[in-house]
Amino acid sequence: MKTIKSAEIVAVGTELLLGQTVNTNASFLAMQLAEIGIFSYYQTVVGDNPERMRAQIELAAQRSDCVLITGGLGPTKDDISMAIAAEVAGKKLEPHEPSRRALESYFKSRGRTNVTDNNWKQTLMPEGGIVLPNNRGTAPGVILPCEVKGHKTVFILLPGPPSELQPMFRESVRPYLEARTDQKLRNQYIRMFGIGESAAESAIQDLIDSQTNPTIASYVAGGDVMFRVTQQISTEAEPDLNGPVIAKIKERLSDYIFEIGNRSMAEVVVDLLRDTGRTVSFAESCTGGLLAASITDIAGSSSVFKGGIVAYDNAVKMQLLNVSAKILEKEGAVSAACAKAMATGCRDVLNTDYAVSVTGIAGPDGGTEQKPVGLVYLAIADEQGTEVLELHLFGDRARIREGAVRQAQNLLRLRLLA
Amino acid sequence: MKTIKSAEIVAVGTELLLGQTVNTNASFLAMQLAEIGIFSYYQTVVGDNPERMRAQIELAAQRSDCVLITGGLGPTKDDISMAIAAEVAGKKLEPHEPSRRALESYFKSRGRTNVTDNNWKQTLMPEGGIVLPNNRGTAPGVILPCEVKGHKTVFILLPGPPSELQPMFRESVRPYLEARTDQKLRNQYIRMFGIGESAAESAIQDLIDSQTNPTIASYVAGGDVMFRVTQQISTEAEPDLNGPVIAKIKERLSDYIFEIGNRSMAEVVVDLLRDTGRTVSFAESCTGGLLAASITDIAGSSSVFKGGIVAYDNAVKMQLLNVSAKILEKEGAVSAACAKAMATGCRDVLNTDYAVSVTGIAGPDGGTEQKPVGLVYLAIADEQGTEVLELHLFGDRARIREGAVRQAQNLLRLRLLA
Repeated sequence: MKTIKSAEIVAVGTELLLGQTVNTNASFLAMQLAEIGIFSYYQTVVGDNPERMRAQIELAAQRSDCVLITGGLGPTKDDISMAIAAEVAGKKLEPHEPSRRALESYFKSRGRTNVTDNNWKQTLMPEGGIVLPNNRGTAPGVILPCEVKGHKTVFILLPGPPSELQPMFRESVRPYLEARTDQKLRNQYIRMFGIGESAAESAIQDLIDSQTNPTIASYVAGGDVMFRVTQQISTEAEPDLNGPVIAKIKERLSDYIFEIGNRSMAEVVVDLLRDTGRTVSFAESCTGGLLAASITDIAGSSSVFKGGIVAYDNAVKMQLLNVSAKILEKEGAVSAACAKAMATGCRDVLNTDYAVSVTGIAGPDGGTEQKPVGLVYLAIADEQGTEVLELHLFGDRARIREGAVRQAQNLLRLRLLA
Repeated sequence: MKTIKSAEIVAVGTELLLGQTVNTNASFLAMQLAEIGIFSYYQTVVGDNPERMRAQIELAAQRSDCVLITGGLGPTKDDISMAIAAEVAGKKLEPHEPSRRALESYFKSRGRTNVTDNNWKQTLMPEGGIVLPNNRGTAPGVILPCEVKGHKTVFILLPGPPSELQPMFRESVRPYLEARTDQKLRNQYIRMFGIGESAAESAIQDLIDSQTNPTIASYVAGGDVMFRVTQQISTEAEPDLNGPVIAKIKERLSDYIFEIGNRSMAEVVVDLLRDTGRTVSFAESCTGGLLAASITDIAGSSSVFKGGIVAYDNAVKMQLLNVSAKILEKEGAVSAACAKAMATGCRDVLNTDYAVSVTGIAGPDGGTEQKPVGLVYLAIADEQGTEVLELHLFGDRARIREGAVRQAQNLLRLRLLA
């Protein structure tokens, strides 16, 4: 069994070449490879042109121990990745019965009877390949060890949709690669909120520069600034060198760290509520349901989240949250007083331990000199009283709404920890 | 002046190879190139290794009329893109006085006095290059016409930060490229709901096969199945060839097409509501605010969306939506009767023309044999009465919730068109 030291990523897709899709598969796979300890020197995007795809896969096969090929596995005429990869590998495509049966039952379970013939193309697999079942879509993946112009390599073909690619990688490809690397890594993530990447990095630059094992790398992913602390080990029994480094980072950045591990801010909040046996409700104006959606996205949130009121219209703020007409007239819907009234009203109506409210101007229109786009008020109400936070957020509508949601989650987290 | 027909993008950066950054520069530039009508057949990412970077730039120079190189222009030791590109082009680097003065005044305006020597490296420019001033950062870009192994090409080097790259491209590079292309593209998109990519493509396979101008390509982005119809034109005055092809596609797939253009389903729904002067409200259980968030994501939705009630807990369904205890006991919260009661209750309480409700089991837990994970009921209430839709959705929690939201949007759209 050959050791895999290097890998490269070849993404197939005209939509990538036209800029219609951002290549998030490449960053996901690159991060995974870094975690496993496999070096990645190239990422490439090619379209569905056979000659160019063949040339690219051949080039990659000769310089990398593993070539991850994403996309182009579907049923359409343009989906030619499997055929081209098999050709470069010198392998025939053969009908794969288990995949055919899986696809049949996939369609059957979805009540699809008029399955067009081109669908079965997805179940042709190269001889000698390890077929990777797709539990979330139609196209299976494959791991295909092969030799191209004298260089031994492994082709790994994965479907393009991230919702299919990511679980397939985690379930099937990662264990395969981990068994074929000659180094082991212990990765731990430190997740922060309220600090930028460069400020976070500056605060520990001396640690980053002086460390060789573990190493520290900074990332931004899903809006979180994080550090990855990575210890190279040869056996699992080796002592933990990450711990002392994480402790040093904590000393300097404890105000910003919300998680040492893999949980998102929403997961941390749901866990804190559950652990303390508390419940929460939300009253949202400018975020329009996004705060509630971010919490109900977490499985098991129903034990801590009772409900929410999206009070977009001022009439709804008065009717359902008992915000007074006086506040709306005098202070306006985007005001500390309105945020406070929304939170207390929400807590009273929905009878929860905590209630969090959001009101602001997400833009692009509706801003004034006194109340510009990006002005957002948050409030949190509990048995102790109500606290209001004024925010000045930047960016477009989506970014302001997401920023308000994350700040609201953090406000609740801090209150739960207080 | 040579015509530029093809371009490729070479992004330089170890942070891209480690998955620390998503390559949004590539999608930005690719979209710009597509708009200008320059074909882009490759995107590549390389690190700051001189040999690999040189080989990649040489390869690109021989197969593309223009090579866009992003990143690696800064002051640090690892920033070697300009030196390598100049070397491949066979051009000397020379001090560029205007850039030096611009950098001096940049630092001066920011009160930076301790400017380290390595900063001046950024003002060494290849002979014969057109220097592109950077008004938002320190590193200028360059346009460098050159010949590599007998192939005439143009290197265009741009700084890595999108906030510097994007304006530099728009201000300096785009006009340069537009003056050197001989073709233009007319792109139009047909967006569908309720049909898979392969079924959609099968329905018009004969059109796809027989068309050369315009061409038809199918793809999936943001959950939508779409066709892109692309006409090659030489002047804007050329007659529209896209229209007749789009008309043929409409004939066959009209049941699924919700948009010919660039609007998402949510935008179409908001526009329909606005055009007909109607209002809507939502009562959500399993989607937990996601439906409301999807509509409030659209700027201007406040004129048609009044508010929503996230009734996660049964007590909230009774209290705020007037769902009867009898329905919840006898039929359960996930039932046609409950969905119907939620929609009519929501419409009454929030006093809107339409109300849409969602109740279901998003999983991963909570499913039974009678009511499995993925069972979702939608209801829509208006002055005519209430309509209920039973859905059996697949996938993980996130996918079921998103599927329910898209089905709810479509239900509202169809009612608005009826």
